[in-house]
Amino acid sequence: MSVLDKVNSPADVKALAFEELPELAAEVRAAVLHKVSNYGGHVGPNLGVVEMTVALHRVFDSPKDKLIWDVSHQSYPHKILTGRKTGFTDGHFHDVTPYTSQEESEHDFFKVGHTSTSIANALGLAKARDLCKDSGNIIAIIGDGSLSGGLAYEALNNAGAYQGNLIIIVNDNQMSIAENHGGMYKNLAALRETHGFAPDNLFRAFGLDYYYLDEGNDIPKLIEVFEKFKDINHPIVLHISTEKGHGYAPAVANKEAYHWRSPFELETGEAKHSGSAVRNYNEVLLDIMDQKISEGVPIFAINAAVPGAFNLKKFAAGHPDRYYDAGIAEQFTLTFGGAMAMGGARPIIFHNSTFLQRGYDQMVHDLAVNNEPAIVVLHGAVISDSDTTHQGSLAIGWISNIPNLVYLAPTSEEELTAMMNWGLAQSEHSVVIQLPEHGLEHRSSSLKDFSQAKFDIRQKGERVALLGLGGMYHQVETLAKVLEKAQIHATLVNPLFISQLDKAALSELGNTHSVIATFEDGIVDGGFGQKVASYLGAYDVRVLNFGAWKEFNEEVPLEELYARYHLTPMSAANDIISALVRPAQ
Amino acid sequence: MSVLDKVNSPADVKALAFEELPELAAEVRAAVLHKVSNYGGHVGPNLGVVEMTVALHRVFDSPKDKLIWDVSHQSYPHKILTGRKTGFTDGHFHDVTPYTSQEESEHDFFKVGHTSTSIANALGLAKARDLCKDSGNIIAIIGDGSLSGGLAYEALNNAGAYQGNLIIIVNDNQMSIAENHGGMYKNLAALRETHGFAPDNLFRAFGLDYYYLDEGNDIPKLIEVFEKFKDINHPIVLHISTEKGHGYAPAVANKEAYHWRSPFELETGEAKHSGSAVRNYNEVLLDIMDQKISEGVPIFAINAAVPGAFNLKKFAAGHPDRYYDAGIAEQFTLTFGGAMAMGGARPIIFHNSTFLQRGYDQMVHDLAVNNEPAIVVLHGAVISDSDTTHQGSLAIGWISNIPNLVYLAPTSEEELTAMMNWGLAQSEHSVVIQLPEHGLEHRSSSLKDFSQAKFDIRQKGERVALLGLGGMYHQVETLAKVLEKAQIHATLVNPLFISQLDKAALSELGNTHSVIATFEDGIVDGGFGQKVASYLGAYDVRVLNFGAWKEFNEEVPLEELYARYHLTPMSAANDIISALVRPAQ
Repeated sequence: MSVLDKVNSPADVKALAFEELPELAAEVRAAVLHKVSNYGGHVGPNLGVVEMTVALHRVFDSPKDKLIWDVSHQSYPHKILTGRKTGFTDGHFHDVTPYTSQEESEHDFFKVGHTSTSIANALGLAKARDLCKDSGNIIAIIGDGSLSGGLAYEALNNAGAYQGNLIIIVNDNQMSIAENHGGMYKNLAALRETHGFAPDNLFRAFGLDYYYLDEGNDIPKLIEVFEKFKDINHPIVLHISTEKGHGYAPAVANKEAYHWRSPFELETGEAKHSGSAVRNYNEVLLDIMDQKISEGVPIFAINAAVPGAFNLKKFAAGHPDRYYDAGIAEQFTLTFGGAMAMGGARPIIFHNSTFLQRGYDQMVHDLAVNNEPAIVVLHGAVISDSDTTHQGSLAIGWISNIPNLVYLAPTSEEELTAMMNWGLAQSEHSVVIQLPEHGLEHRSSSLKDFSQAKFDIRQKGERVALLGLGGMYHQVETLAKVLEKAQIHATLVNPLFISQLDKAALSELGNTHSVIATFEDGIVDGGFGQKVASYLGAYDVRVLNFGAWKEFNEEVPLEELYARYHLTPMSAANDIISALVRPAQ
Repeated sequence: MSVLDKVNSPADVKALAFEELPELAAEVRAAVLHKVSNYGGHVGPNLGVVEMTVALHRVFDSPKDKLIWDVSHQSYPHKILTGRKTGFTDGHFHDVTPYTSQEESEHDFFKVGHTSTSIANALGLAKARDLCKDSGNIIAIIGDGSLSGGLAYEALNNAGAYQGNLIIIVNDNQMSIAENHGGMYKNLAALRETHGFAPDNLFRAFGLDYYYLDEGNDIPKLIEVFEKFKDINHPIVLHISTEKGHGYAPAVANKEAYHWRSPFELETGEAKHSGSAVRNYNEVLLDIMDQKISEGVPIFAINAAVPGAFNLKKFAAGHPDRYYDAGIAEQFTLTFGGAMAMGGARPIIFHNSTFLQRGYDQMVHDLAVNNEPAIVVLHGAVISDSDTTHQGSLAIGWISNIPNLVYLAPTSEEELTAMMNWGLAQSEHSVVIQLPEHGLEHRSSSLKDFSQAKFDIRQKGERVALLGLGGMYHQVETLAKVLEKAQIHATLVNPLFISQLDKAALSELGNTHSVIATFEDGIVDGGFGQKVASYLGAYDVRVLNFGAWKEFNEEVPLEELYARYHLTPMSAANDIISALVRPAQ
């Protein structure tokens, strides 16, 4: 019987002999590696906190003492020790979610997936504990990378004025997703070098007590520190140095690649499935940027700790003075990038749609109000099988309703190129471009000037008009073929614009068709189709809006979602034909 | 000729004799006081920086050197010295906007009105300067209150890694809108007390150079410091202590009341128009909270530096242990408040809708994904005559499309009470309640349980159904009377729910009426009416959505906006009658 075999709850960790703990850590590490190498997932973050997690569950009494994991992409060891180790064995990888979930275990308290929330969550639980005359330790575990987000600072500032038990573990592995960026990291480095004694301690500046531990992968040392500060009566930062990827040489050697990784050979670290060498939309963008730079355009690329999502390291290598990673600071990227545009540069700000949510007010108050001619390029704004906290289906609903923004949906390399050319040449509008998430397609661009909405009517038909927005356009092409079999020759429209309607085209469609069906890769509420339905509300035409329901989903397969939302060609065709043949009431 | 008479541009400030500068400051102060006492506006913030502004324009060369004012509610002296002093004289108060505007002057660079953006904006201009091989100083002026917002920290962190000219003036007047909250303020106090030599310097912790000046209302000292650091080759924080309200005793004595003030008697400080003593929705809320506390409910009130908007100081006086001001940290209030709800407390989070925009991701990722049973109470979510950066018309469009949230629009004291009673008794949903902005109305509540949408059909009519959401319901009552004169007896619906449709009621209305008209107090795009239009897209009914256009407005009178948007009873009635009588095409 292995040590891990004996552990089904935190109580079992406490029942082990002290000497068994290193073996437990080794087995937990092996379980993590078994899953991520076969299934993909966060590697380095989890490997780095194996010892810390063992020590936390040895000392503290979860769930009475509450561990709040920031992002929770490092919670695998915690899951293994809290009754969920089956999820790390063959055939059961899908049984546990990749992030914490209160629905999954009484040892989890929040569903999270975005950074920098743990201190605010912990302080909230602490205040509720005080108000409700409860007891127990509240412990936030936050990485140094997550400290770059504004919410973390807001919470540090508030924690510095709090007067009860609160333990903030700064898990300092000297990395964000990629390398860290920002002046604060010089302070963290100085604190590590001096074992906590460097001047101008960031945490003390916020009014917090502070303790440094250098041996963050040493179980006895960790236990000693946690026992020392358990039941402390005021907030303290425990700054603990850990090694990202600890215990697996390839992950230590290449921390960025192993932050999150698709399945790989455990022996060698080689990827099991080689990446596609096919040209993609990122390559298109990089080519355009290179071309513009050669023409003397003051291009500048900005992102928030996700260069990998856009292959920006390649751009940075060629143009180090034109590349900027702001850390996990989405708000900053927009205000900063917008100001660069006002200053005469041509910034392109690259974001994953789920994380861009952090910058809603900056999109409104900075970019849109000021018509700052920056370009925001978006990945991931689609209905997907991702987890609850990373849904891309909300993007259209919040971005398309901001005044002034020109929000565009290319369907092809040619359209993306035309939009970038226009966006970089004009200086009147903030522009948001939502990349298609499917493979590169080719479709000539009818439009060169995107300052006024003009739909691309790609096929003139009758009775039924299909509007397929961005990544949905090729779905609509398939749907049209299905409708042809029912003798319906549909009109096909590529709207190109998400935020503006081509009212002339819509009026013409409304007056000449019986059914207009819109398709968008996101939640229908607040989206493109509802704008069409509203505009045509007084027309004698039936409007059907296809897209996602207003809901969060947890890793639901895409086929299931498409069936649920009637986005498959057959079910959409059925709905359209029903609307077409149903008599007026 | 007064000294100010000679000043029409920054060059004129430089041309004055050094000895004339105190008199210039006195005249600028008098001009500010003349305007704010007669017209209303920000008092203390402007009075505190009169000397600093004179010194800045004496030393730096605007607009080549760029002054970036955070929030810009302290930019009146700057406006007076940059050619806009007429806007501070009788009959011309409306000629200049209350915030900076690049459309108003070449000495302004951004329209702003939300806090904590100045350092990010300044760093963006600095990077654009470098990229475009430009020159000049970039100077951000940020108050200590604005430092509590996460965006300010993100920018400090990024500034700490920057290597060119950047001057960050921390205008430390020891106040936010109300008093400051957070551990950082202990650090600022220690730095003031030690004239900059206290340990654990917050700004140095971010890697920034630092200099302290205690005499922030002393023109010669300010000039000396600015001359010392002009053209500095790296970022520096100039921490300058000023007195909020300096030079006007009532404003110094009562800093919170004079942060922003409606017109007052200059001699005495007495308000010119006494506030209404009539009971309002804030009073209703405070009564409910008192009642619940007496019943043992763990009520907890949270806000982000705007207690005055909700009369929360009164609540805090009675329940100091149940009141929390997080500073200008909207993101934090939501994550923190949501966690308190998860911990068993019953938090109520009070926000102005324009500032709540900062917390979009926290609304999604923390409250909604986790169904945290907190209540968010919103003021200002209406079409208004406010300035561009404080428009309330966006709220419905972004909040109503977030899954899981129950977003409610009471029209009366009784409905608000019913919603609060339900919201505080249930633990399944995050609830957002949008207060009506008109006077207290009375209308019995038909509903006790708000977990499922159920519209209140208050009058059954025929042919035309009017749906008046929240604060728009009483408009619709007036409209119904106009329609009666045209022999149209309309159905009247009070939807109560912004985020969910009562599909059964809508189907019934769609099947039995010819025209359905929706009215909402915000932009139509993404809002309530478009959900109705979408739902009824395949019904044989005409749907008209009334509300604001998708646009920003700068202090446009409400009557003009209502006329533009066809929200007056006569123009709405005309549109409805046209839709009713127009034959099918």
